[in-house]
Amino acid sequence: MPQSYPRHEPAAGPAESLREIVADQRLDDARVWLETRQPHVIADELARMGDVGAGVAFRLLDEDRAPAVFGELEPVDQQQILAGLHDRFFLDLVEGMDPDDRVRMLRETPAGVAERVLAGLSPHERRVTSALLEYPEGSAGRYMTPEVVALPQELTVEQALRTVREEGANAETVYTLPVVDAGRRLTGIVELRELVLNPPDMMVADLVVTEPATAYATDPAEDAARLMTETNDMNLPVVDGDGRLVGLLTFDDAVEVIEAADTEDFARQAGTAPWTGHYMAASVWQLARYRALWLSLLLIAATLTVGVTRAFEATLEQVATLALFIPMLIGAGGNAGAQAATACVRALAVGEVRGSDLLKVVWRELRVGLVLGSLLALFGLVVGTLFVGGDVAAVVGITLVLICGWAATIGGTMPLLAKRLRIDPAVVSAPMVTTFVDATGLIIYFLTAKAVLGI
Amino acid sequence: MPQSYPRHEPAAGPAESLREIVADQRLDDARVWLETRQPHVIADELARMGDVGAGVAFRLLDEDRAPAVFGELEPVDQQQILAGLHDRFFLDLVEGMDPDDRVRMLRETPAGVAERVLAGLSPHERRVTSALLEYPEGSAGRYMTPEVVALPQELTVEQALRTVREEGANAETVYTLPVVDAGRRLTGIVELRELVLNPPDMMVADLVVTEPATAYATDPAEDAARLMTETNDMNLPVVDGDGRLVGLLTFDDAVEVIEAADTEDFARQAGTAPWTGHYMAASVWQLARYRALWLSLLLIAATLTVGVTRAFEATLEQVATLALFIPMLIGAGGNAGAQAATACVRALAVGEVRGSDLLKVVWRELRVGLVLGSLLALFGLVVGTLFVGGDVAAVVGITLVLICGWAATIGGTMPLLAKRLRIDPAVVSAPMVTTFVDATGLIIYFLTAKAVLGI
Repeated sequence: MPQSYPRHEPAAGPAESLREIVADQRLDDARVWLETRQPHVIADELARMGDVGAGVAFRLLDEDRAPAVFGELEPVDQQQILAGLHDRFFLDLVEGMDPDDRVRMLRETPAGVAERVLAGLSPHERRVTSALLEYPEGSAGRYMTPEVVALPQELTVEQALRTVREEGANAETVYTLPVVDAGRRLTGIVELRELVLNPPDMMVADLVVTEPATAYATDPAEDAARLMTETNDMNLPVVDGDGRLVGLLTFDDAVEVIEAADTEDFARQAGTAPWTGHYMAASVWQLARYRALWLSLLLIAATLTVGVTRAFEATLEQVATLALFIPMLIGAGGNAGAQAATACVRALAVGEVRGSDLLKVVWRELRVGLVLGSLLALFGLVVGTLFVGGDVAAVVGITLVLICGWAATIGGTMPLLAKRLRIDPAVVSAPMVTTFVDATGLIIYFLTAKAVLGI
Repeated sequence: MPQSYPRHEPAAGPAESLREIVADQRLDDARVWLETRQPHVIADELARMGDVGAGVAFRLLDEDRAPAVFGELEPVDQQQILAGLHDRFFLDLVEGMDPDDRVRMLRETPAGVAERVLAGLSPHERRVTSALLEYPEGSAGRYMTPEVVALPQELTVEQALRTVREEGANAETVYTLPVVDAGRRLTGIVELRELVLNPPDMMVADLVVTEPATAYATDPAEDAARLMTETNDMNLPVVDGDGRLVGLLTFDDAVEVIEAADTEDFARQAGTAPWTGHYMAASVWQLARYRALWLSLLLIAATLTVGVTRAFEATLEQVATLALFIPMLIGAGGNAGAQAATACVRALAVGEVRGSDLLKVVWRELRVGLVLGSLLALFGLVVGTLFVGGDVAAVVGITLVLICGWAATIGGTMPLLAKRLRIDPAVVSAPMVTTFVDATGLIIYFLTAKAVLGI
């Protein structure tokens, strides 16, 4: 019964991975493996297998289950599977996809293949797909389903239910029913639940939620999805610039958008270019490529620290023990900056902080940093005194207060500045803040040393 | 019509913030402000106002809209609002909440108040609430709704729809209808859509999806929610240890769970204790408290770097220019480690990597690190030669290769080791990896210097 959980353990069938079975050419075992797993488990396994093996395994699926597995795959993996299929099977699969999934898959497909796919579709699916392709990448229009049951306002509940029965089979959802006027302008929504639970002769107009939350088709899909998490709407009507209904963003696509956006933010926070593939399917070269740019830029920026240290070489020579504390101090500054940056990037992403809060954030992060720095300074004084004695310990303590105040302010401010400059705040990664704080922190350290030690 | 978007701009009414209006005691303006905003916008504003002002503003809401706004608030904020209300209004609000929301709010409430709340509920709501309170914190049972329309299998579509009409009004959702046997054991689910679109005399048994994805009530809510994103299920049946239906995890609660889990992972990645409040509502002391523990622990760990540098003081004195590159080298190592750690923590969270992939991850991260290190080494050689000449430049280059290989391996391995030890992998924060790589990276640097320079 509820044996589908925990998720990666099979109800029955071979316990080895599909990859091993296919590598051994044991195709009968592979068939049994595929028959005993749920579609999302099979999709995860195919994604891990990469190019050749996945194509072989996919063709072993029986025709009834292939579309469900295919639908669970990421667009990149779908494209890879399609590349290995014969045309007829290939076109059947694509014809059966939801239009929004199809459009995202086509984005990963070479232009020549994409045209062949479009040409092979039925006229209706082709029209729908072409329309979605016109919305900008990453927009709500790209993620919405255009196949919607829209109701005119002047129906009774009974008439509305009849419309749902007539038109609902092709729609991705019938739970949220947009209500439109004669010009297809959105005037509200009604939930299927209301139609089912209310008397047949009641008017739809009496059940409509007017002024529902909506998104424009050209809005960023992430904004639309986050709006849904705030309003708890299952499906969000998407309209064009004139307020005409063009589709619905469904909750499952919204969750996908949010998960992808969070993955992207995670990657950015660690100074990695965001990407969409499966970690285990990516080659070493692919993984390296996604990280190389930022790592190189950060290294180039870090040469500032070499310059700063060199500029204060005389100070270092006079008090050689200062060198001992460099890694600890810039580490503490980097950590304090990363904490502040991550807190602000996330608060911006979920809508708790707005661009206009800049000055408030500067003021609170400065104070938070000074509080934390004072705490660390107590520890720094003890360690400094133990290792090298009072004078340098005082320098270490004072530097910790200043460096933490500075780092938290910078870390909290940079994402908001980015937002104001209309750059994605998540681009302000923790490593970027850390590297900046490393170089400027060294200046703070050496200047403090010169002032306190009188050199 | 679709004027509710962009989200923070009002359709009409005062443009100032509610906080300013309430601070000025302009209660009529505050009423207009509240009337012209959507519930989730009001909730966000109340969360930003903190204690006193939010309580005043909330009482200005008209009674029809108060529950909707209240439902949008986070449990901590709900608790704060309740603390300032008179008993009758207070109990009405709590009685009207969904049981799962009520349970999460009670968790934030002092025990005495929670008991008073429970005692004031109607018998039905009290029983339901007490049952939910028995599930462990963070479990699927705490987030599910117990108010579900369950169907026996032997009904016709027409009979099933009648059951939905009779029992549906109190259920949080009627779109996913669990099908149960005489012992209330889950045998499948049927979607309301299928009941509406199919002929009245058809048997429910012919429309049931058997072996649906399910969660146990004691499973972590995050696992259950992530499973829903994989299967695209709108609602997930939750069962007890005997396979008996106890509730449904609805998509909106699942999204909330995922958003909270991601926020927690973000905080952890930056070395901050996870928390649940609103960034703008938290005081400076609260923010500092959440960051202080990890920042202190990391500073204590960082004193290792002082010890290491001291152990190699003789080496540093012989070749003073080695000190110039310390910040740059440990910065590069820290960044490479943070990239790997973040990639693996995320891949574990979304289910792309499993605990059993440990050796594969070690091997791929080692190679990725060496590739990236070799790239950085080219740059290091140039910078080193420019600043100090060939010998030390060679040391810098070789160190970069070794440090990046080491850092990526450590960064990729630690989350997986944590997973194997049944610790939340997200506890392995980027700053933790960075601090560890700082100290060990210095050893690599000095040993390389001794070997290459023959000192």
